[in-house]
Amino acid sequence: MADYSKLSINQWTIMRQWSLPEAIEGYARHGIHAIGIVREKLREIGVAEARRLLRAHQMTVTGYCIGGLLTDSDPARFRANVAETRQAIDEAAALAAQCVVFVAGGLPAGSKDLPAAQARCLEGLADILPYAREAGVTLALEPLHPMTCAFRSCLSTLGQANSWIEQLRAGPELGIVVDVYHVWWDPQLARAIERAAGRIVAFHVCDWLMNTVDLRLDRGMMGDGVIDIPRIRRLVEETGYDGYREVEIFSERNWWRRDPNEVIAIAKARYLSDVIGDS
Amino acid sequence: MADYSKLSINQWTIMRQWSLPEAIEGYARHGIHAIGIVREKLREIGVAEARRLLRAHQMTVTGYCIGGLLTDSDPARFRANVAETRQAIDEAAALAAQCVVFVAGGLPAGSKDLPAAQARCLEGLADILPYAREAGVTLALEPLHPMTCAFRSCLSTLGQANSWIEQLRAGPELGIVVDVYHVWWDPQLARAIERAAGRIVAFHVCDWLMNTVDLRLDRGMMGDGVIDIPRIRRLVEETGYDGYREVEIFSERNWWRRDPNEVIAIAKARYLSDVIGDS
Repeated sequence: MADYSKLSINQWTIMRQWSLPEAIEGYARHGIHAIGIVREKLREIGVAEARRLLRAHQMTVTGYCIGGLLTDSDPARFRANVAETRQAIDEAAALAAQCVVFVAGGLPAGSKDLPAAQARCLEGLADILPYAREAGVTLALEPLHPMTCAFRSCLSTLGQANSWIEQLRAGPELGIVVDVYHVWWDPQLARAIERAAGRIVAFHVCDWLMNTVDLRLDRGMMGDGVIDIPRIRRLVEETGYDGYREVEIFSERNWWRRDPNEVIAIAKARYLSDVIGDS
Repeated sequence: MADYSKLSINQWTIMRQWSLPEAIEGYARHGIHAIGIVREKLREIGVAEARRLLRAHQMTVTGYCIGGLLTDSDPARFRANVAETRQAIDEAAALAAQCVVFVAGGLPAGSKDLPAAQARCLEGLADILPYAREAGVTLALEPLHPMTCAFRSCLSTLGQANSWIEQLRAGPELGIVVDVYHVWWDPQLARAIERAAGRIVAFHVCDWLMNTVDLRLDRGMMGDGVIDIPRIRRLVEETGYDGYREVEIFSERNWWRRDPNEVIAIAKARYLSDVIGDS
């Protein structure tokens, strides 16, 4: 029988179709018992109701999206985003989420100073880490594809994420998300994953479409693109990572327009054929 | 008086508006005496006529676009692209071009094997290098932005270009193009440029627009985006590079729709304000 015990599906994959209760109930109907939760969706029902539903359906929370965006040069906005990240940590603790996905933030409006944005993000992280440690929550640095550097993430590679963790001398309160979409092109990929051994707390999958038409919202279903996902999965798992494989697809023109039950069914099939693969 | 003696403009910048004769005559009218030439445009008039026009207008050819695309797994297509690159070398020699811009090529149709594509490109390069040396022409490796990895270039970073040159034990027949658009996001940028000292044979400028809408054809005019171009120019010139600064803008929605004389006039102004800058 097919084994879906390590398959998680991030809410972004059916973002336009399902609320959090619908997603939890829908996943369970399909035999999926792990979910990546999006804050905006959680807020529609609150932490208490989410906990009740998660428990009722034996659902593990593999990640909570997102904290971060700590590059703002305006002190008030910077502090507001630090506070939001602390709140995300509290919520993640209440949900027993395996991590808070940390997105660095891009360049502030009008700025061209990338090193300064990165430095601010590191300062913000240093400020928040003791709070995460206290809460028993792992912040998981997710390097995003370099094409998002301007508007979303000045953290662009796994090598850079490793360096940040080493600079901050962080413990288990700081980890790394490896998302194949963001890192597949990297000539240093194998080396960077090896260096991340013991730090990887989440593994995300989708695919890169040859005819990508948008820098944010045009990801493909595993198998529809060019990424050798089983190869990257093996590299990640060779470091000792034995956690979930989480499907996260942003897809304005395709998957967000489909019947969510069809999306889940196809994701399950592709999980076997294009994430696990032949190995 | 403003100094444009190191300003070059690549034909791509006015690709939809001007033929090669129109570009050469147009640039000269604007006091610009350096051009990056595109093969498709050269073929409309042939090498002899191009040489005559270049000489008549005292025009330096800072680069010839392009050679490469050596990742094909089909042997016949691979050999055809090797032959095309040799022909580009011959044409570049006849034009006294400072380099042939080398674009690696993406993944062949249906393939997910990025390391194999890179290995084929290196083999092709090894095959061609003696020919370039003989011809006295420099092939200039241009790493393209990682978002082009699938369809255009499996060479994605300056670090990788440095490694390829070292692996091939190449001499001056193999160099590097630094294009700010492709490399500005790279956390290893300063180190990679330093390591490229003596190898940089061309420096390309344009800008990254915050609201980029296309992965190939939506570059911005210098100053309209987020790249700190003077900073990267200084890094490049600190290695000893004292060549041209070549404006290369692919812009389906804006600059390709404008009066080319206006494009040149604006590029000249922005060259002073946003390429040279305050330094």
